[in-house]
This record gives sequence, C-alpha cells and structure tokens, in this order.
Amino acid sequence: MSELLDEMNALGERLRRASQKVRRASGATRTAALHALARGLRSNAEALLETNGIDVDAALARGLQGSVLERLRLTPERLEEMIRAVTDIAAQDDPVGEVTGLKVRPNGLRVGQMRIPLGVVGIVYEARPNVTTDAAALCLRSGNAVLLRGGSEAAATNTALVEVVRAALLEVGLPEDAVSTLPSTDRAWVLEMLKAERWLDVVIPRGGEALIRFVTEHARVPVIKHYKGVCHIFVDRAADLDMAIGVCVNAKAQRPGVCNAMETLLVHAEIAPRFLPRLALEMEAASVSLRGCDRTRELLPNVDEANEEDFYAEYLDLILAVRIVDDLDAAIAHIETYGSDHTESILSQDHGAVTRFIEEVNSAVVMANASTRFADGGQLGLGAEIGISTTRLHAYGPMGAADLTTRKFIVYGSGQVRS
Amino acid sequence: MSELLDEMNALGERLRRASQKVRRASGATRTAALHALARGLRSNAEALLETNGIDVDAALARGLQGSVLERLRLTPERLEEMIRAVTDIAAQDDPVGEVTGLKVRPNGLRVGQMRIPLGVVGIVYEARPNVTTDAAALCLRSGNAVLLRGGSEAAATNTALVEVVRAALLEVGLPEDAVSTLPSTDRAWVLEMLKAERWLDVVIPRGGEALIRFVTEHARVPVIKHYKGVCHIFVDRAADLDMAIGVCVNAKAQRPGVCNAMETLLVHAEIAPRFLPRLALEMEAASVSLRGCDRTRELLPNVDEANEEDFYAEYLDLILAVRIVDDLDAAIAHIETYGSDHTESILSQDHGAVTRFIEEVNSAVVMANASTRFADGGQLGLGAEIGISTTRLHAYGPMGAADLTTRKFIVYGSGQVRS
Repeated sequence: MSELLDEMNALGERLRRASQKVRRASGATRTAALHALARGLRSNAEALLETNGIDVDAALARGLQGSVLERLRLTPERLEEMIRAVTDIAAQDDPVGEVTGLKVRPNGLRVGQMRIPLGVVGIVYEARPNVTTDAAALCLRSGNAVLLRGGSEAAATNTALVEVVRAALLEVGLPEDAVSTLPSTDRAWVLEMLKAERWLDVVIPRGGEALIRFVTEHARVPVIKHYKGVCHIFVDRAADLDMAIGVCVNAKAQRPGVCNAMETLLVHAEIAPRFLPRLALEMEAASVSLRGCDRTRELLPNVDEANEEDFYAEYLDLILAVRIVDDLDAAIAHIETYGSDHTESILSQDHGAVTRFIEEVNSAVVMANASTRFADGGQLGLGAEIGISTTRLHAYGPMGAADLTTRKFIVYGSGQVRS
Repeated sequence: MSELLDEMNALGERLRRASQKVRRASGATRTAALHALARGLRSNAEALLETNGIDVDAALARGLQGSVLERLRLTPERLEEMIRAVTDIAAQDDPVGEVTGLKVRPNGLRVGQMRIPLGVVGIVYEARPNVTTDAAALCLRSGNAVLLRGGSEAAATNTALVEVVRAALLEVGLPEDAVSTLPSTDRAWVLEMLKAERWLDVVIPRGGEALIRFVTEHARVPVIKHYKGVCHIFVDRAADLDMAIGVCVNAKAQRPGVCNAMETLLVHAEIAPRFLPRLALEMEAASVSLRGCDRTRELLPNVDEANEEDFYAEYLDLILAVRIVDDLDAAIAHIETYGSDHTESILSQDHGAVTRFIEEVNSAVVMANASTRFADGGQLGLGAEIGISTTRLHAYGPMGAADLTTRKFIVYGSGQVRS
C-alpha cells in the first residue's frame, strides 16, 4: 500500500509538472496538438482496430455481450467519429485566458477575472474507447493535464490510444505526461487515485450509477457527477398534440438506454382523454410498455399500474410511467418530488405556461417543445462533453471544455494600499 | 442520535420548502426583505446591543479575551456597519434569472443558460455576529435559504439577530424558515448538519484553519473553503522602490492577523541591495520582525534565519519571511512550491514582467502594484463576501452573492426530435 502511494505521488508530481507546461502553452500549440492527434488516429487506424480486436476477443471469451460489448468495439466508422470529435474540439474557442468584467474601482484599482485551467483532471470511466480521446482532447483544449482510468475490458485499446495521444503531444513540444493513465487497472490503484487530492483538482466519473457511487464514496478529491436521469415530459393542456406524439415517442424510444431518455410522462387532465389513447397506440408501435396512475388506467384500461417506485425509476428501457396531473403546478410539484435534476421538457403553445415551467423547474436542463434527448453537450453546442453534472456546484448539466476551467481575480494597481 | 436525525430532517424539509418560495419570489421582494432587515436592525439596536452584552459578560466570566472577545462585541458603530452591509447588498444587481449565451442551433433549438440559486446554503462560523447578517443578506440576495450555525459564545446575539431577520422576511411575505439556525450549538448538531446532503447544497465554513479542517473532515455536503493564506509579494528589479516600501509595509502590518496579509516577501537579486536595507528600517518602525534566507542575511546581518518551515508559514502576526530570488521565474517557482493559492502581488514597472506574473501565477487573486490586503470581496467590488475559496471548483477567490448561484440550461424548441 505504501509502495502504491509512493508510485501515485511520483505519477502525481509528473502530472502536476506537465500541467504547468500545458497551461502555459499557447492556444495555438494546444490546437496543433489536437490536429496532430487527429492525424495520428487516422494513420494508426489499422493498428488501433487490430488492438481493439484483442480486447473484444478477450471480452467474448469471458462471456461479455450486449451493450457492454457493443460499446467496447471499435469500427472504422466509430474511429472516424472519434477523429471528428477531436477535430471539432480543435476548432472550438480556446476558453483559457479570457478576461471578463474588468472594471475600475473608486481607488483606481482595475479588477477583473481571467479564465484558467483547473490543473489536473481525473476521469474514471467504463470500457468505452471514445471517452479516452474525447477526455484527452477536452482536457488539452482547456489547458489541463489528465489522468485516465478506463475500464479493464478496454485496457489494450486504451493503452494504444493513449500512445497516439502522447506522440501527438511530443510532436508539438508538449510534455507527454500531460495525458497519463494509471499503471494498472487494479481496483487498489483507482482507490489511490481517488484519494490523491494533492495532485488532482477534480475527478469526473463517467458510467453507470454503480461506478458513480463507488467514486463518490471513496473520493477525497472533489467529484463532479450525476447519479441518474429520471427525465420528465409534461404535456400541457395547450400542447400541439401532433408535435407531442412525435416528441414523446422520440424522447422515450429513440435510444431508451441513455440518461436523457424520458422516464415519466405527465399529462394535463384536460387534454389526457384526447392525447393518451393516441399516444398509447404510437408507444405500442414503438414497443414501449406503459405503467399508469389510476386516472391513466381509467382512460387506458389495459395499461399496468404504476406504483410509487415507478415514479422514482430510471428504467433505461422501453418502459414509461404515465401520470395525469391537474395543472402545471401539480406537474412542477411531481418533478420536485420524484425528479433527479437532470432534464425536463414542457410541451405547450401557451407562452405563460412555458415561461413558468422554464423559470420554476430548476433541473440542469429545462426545455420547451423539444425532446429530452437533446440534453447532451454536443447537441447543446458545447462540442463533445466531458460529463454531466446534476449537483449545482461548479457546473450544472452537460459539461464542455469551458467547464474544466475556473476564474482567478486579476488586479492592476499603481501602488494602492489599504487604509 | 436517531432523534437528532429526525429533527434534522424536519428542519431540512422546512428549509427546502422555504427555499422554493424564496427562489420564486421576485428580485424586488427579496430587495424589500433586505430593506426591512436594515430597518429592523436599526429599530432594535438597543435590544441587540443589550443582548450582545449578555454574551460578552458570559465570555468575560469564562476568561475569553483578545481578538475573540473583540470580534464578539457589538458596538453602535459595528451595528451601523452591519446595517450598511445589508443596504449595500440590497442595492446589488440581482444575480437570479440572468440569461446568457442564448444561441440558435442548426436545428432551430434556442439554447442558453439561466442563473438560479443553489438552493439551501449552510454556513458554519465563529463568534462574529456580523457574519449572521452578512450571510443572511447574501443568501436572500441570491434567492437561497440558509442554515446558520454560529459560535456558541455569540448564541444569544445570533438568536436575537435571526429573530430580526425572520421578522423582516414575514414583513414582505417570505417564509421565515428561509433563514434558520440549528436548535442548539452542540457539536452533535453541527455533525448532523454536515451530513445533511439531502437538504443542503453546499456548506461554507468561515473561521480559522481548525474550524475549516473540522468541517471538511466531517462533511458529506460539498464544501467551499480556503485553509490559509500564505500571500507573497515579489519585488521585481524594475519596481518603483518608494511604492514598494509603502505597499509591503501595508500588506504586512496594516492588519497582520487576516488571511490576505503578506507572509513572504520575494526580492529580485538585482534590486535587493538597494531595497532591503530601506525596507528593514520601515518594517522595524512598524514592529515587524524579519526572517531571511542566507542571501538576505548577507545584506541584513541582524535578521534571524528563515528555515524551510518559515516559507510555508501563515504567521498571522508581525513576522515576515524574506527571500532573495534570481529572477521572475524563481519567484513564480517559489510561489508554486510554498504558496496556498490565495493572493500574490508583483511590484514592477516592467510591462512584460507584470504580464507574465499575472498570467502564469494561478492563485485565486493575482495582483500588480497593489497591497495583498485588497483580496477581499468588498474591496474587489462584490459587496460583502460570503467567504473565500482557494479550491478551484465552483468559485476561486472571494465569493459574493453571484457565487451562491449556478446556471441551468434552457432550451426552446418547436417540436424538434433527435434522429
């Protein structure tokens, strides 16, 4: 254990030193590193796909299947998407160095704030190779060093990807240690990483609720996280019903296994008799099972009963809880009680109802007349996202490169002293 | 213990409900509450001073003295300062509701961010009655509810102050529970409060390093904090020496017991022979003892030796560590090794040196040609400060009302679905 700590300290020291060089590098140098990375991924494509094959074969041999295997597998198309994400991030505005709010105080001091990198970012994630390049690119864009700990199933792939990243860093004269991995995927090493508050400024877990709870429980380093997404759509009495059908089916069924899929539908009582029978047909066509409150089941007698737990549930599946509410206030109260502060959408043509919903619901993403599936860094215009936060400190909602920075105060004087 | 937990949950629930009403109240209502508070403090001045006398007498009877007693004591002038702080906060821009960055995405979605309150803020502080009204006012300005836990020595004073605050809330139709205190100053209650992540969105400790470490160690609620201020001034070779004398004496001696006082002076080797002998005379006149590195002691043979610990020390006293460095790089390297990320200032007329220092030193407050004593929310234009952060998540440096908010994403669509 103490040997591990020594190694962690040595790794941390290398990261900290590298982070100082990265943050002093110009934006142009960091952009050049990202372009070098994109080129490196393309020229190493064959070798990367071959290495990924080793991870996939090993996973198959251990009996892995389904979505885990699916996420682990690299294809030429996926690699192309990863390259495009890196190129997109290279094209983003450089958040570092921006000065805001420079004002002159009565005593002549000029006071403002300058955006700076956080320092060293830790990422703990599952077997998704694209997170390796997304995270490295976002951290470099924002002037940070990064310590990556990916899932053990993707160990060979991640090692190969990080080699390409480090070669790109060296190509532009940046220290390769700025993107580092733990020496092993052993759990003991993750635990050591989570305690390294001396070296890491933040840890961001990316993955399922179990991973996030593990990180939160063991971390002494500050964590930015979200546990789950129990996303709601409220179909107001003034909703455009055709639009509502389209949005609801999309929010539930387009990709049910992700955190921004709708889990509970709230329907205004006045519109429910006209809306729910139509919706039930469309949902059935999309293979979605409904679980309804008592009032819903009066309109849709074949629907299963939703109990209290259903309204707290993140199904991540083709299941939808449905509740009829008396008005906007009841919808907001339901979201306050059962919600997870992730994403909620109101469908309504009534300006007053939209305004109240947008202002009063304080989830991380609040929408009107759009599918909850847009709650995603790329869709909201942040470029690739480094994660999503449903705690209100530091960042709230999808986080892009700018969320890996903070602002220091800068003060220019001419000899002012305090009396 | 479980009874305590039940009581904490009941208190938390009341706070959460009150916070929902406060955040939905208009800015004008919250401003009116602050004006009502200012009036209430003035009309209850006599009773408040009398109640404070009870705390002071009890403290005297227990043998308290010095700065602790000094901070506990209310005087008509101090009460007037507290009222002025509340009035200043009432005059501040309302941070809540501000919408920024509203842009149209290629698919027609309009995406922006809206500033919202954190929710419920916890403040743990020592026996300083002004923190009670400052914290209540800043939390109301920013639309938050607040749970206050002040030092036991000020219990009677704080109870009386909170009664005035709650009367002001009722006067404008806001729930009085929005500003609450723990039912007792027992340590068991603080511990319960620090674990109440279900009810509190953040805890801010205000006080000495021991209090802050206690809070950090026991909190499951996110904490915003700073441990200490080891503030540096670097006198560059291109410094104006008259200005440098004035700024250094002010930064060290004007109020040595606070976190933004200078603790270590770094002097460029080229200017040290002309600067240090003059400085030594002025510091002696201000009763400041110097502790110098070997090169300093060659110039000032009577000065005590500074050892490694001196460069890490937050003296909070009329003591100053002095080190001669070869150049700007050495000064920055010293600050990176020994600093506490609080406040540093360069004294120089060389534009290039100033620019490099401001850009490369990533402490919370970085200054040029000004006393470190200006690192304070009031001085930097934030109005009264709720605390100071030397960790980079969420806020960095002095924090005002706007730092008690976060930003949610708002999205306006016209039926967009994701493909």
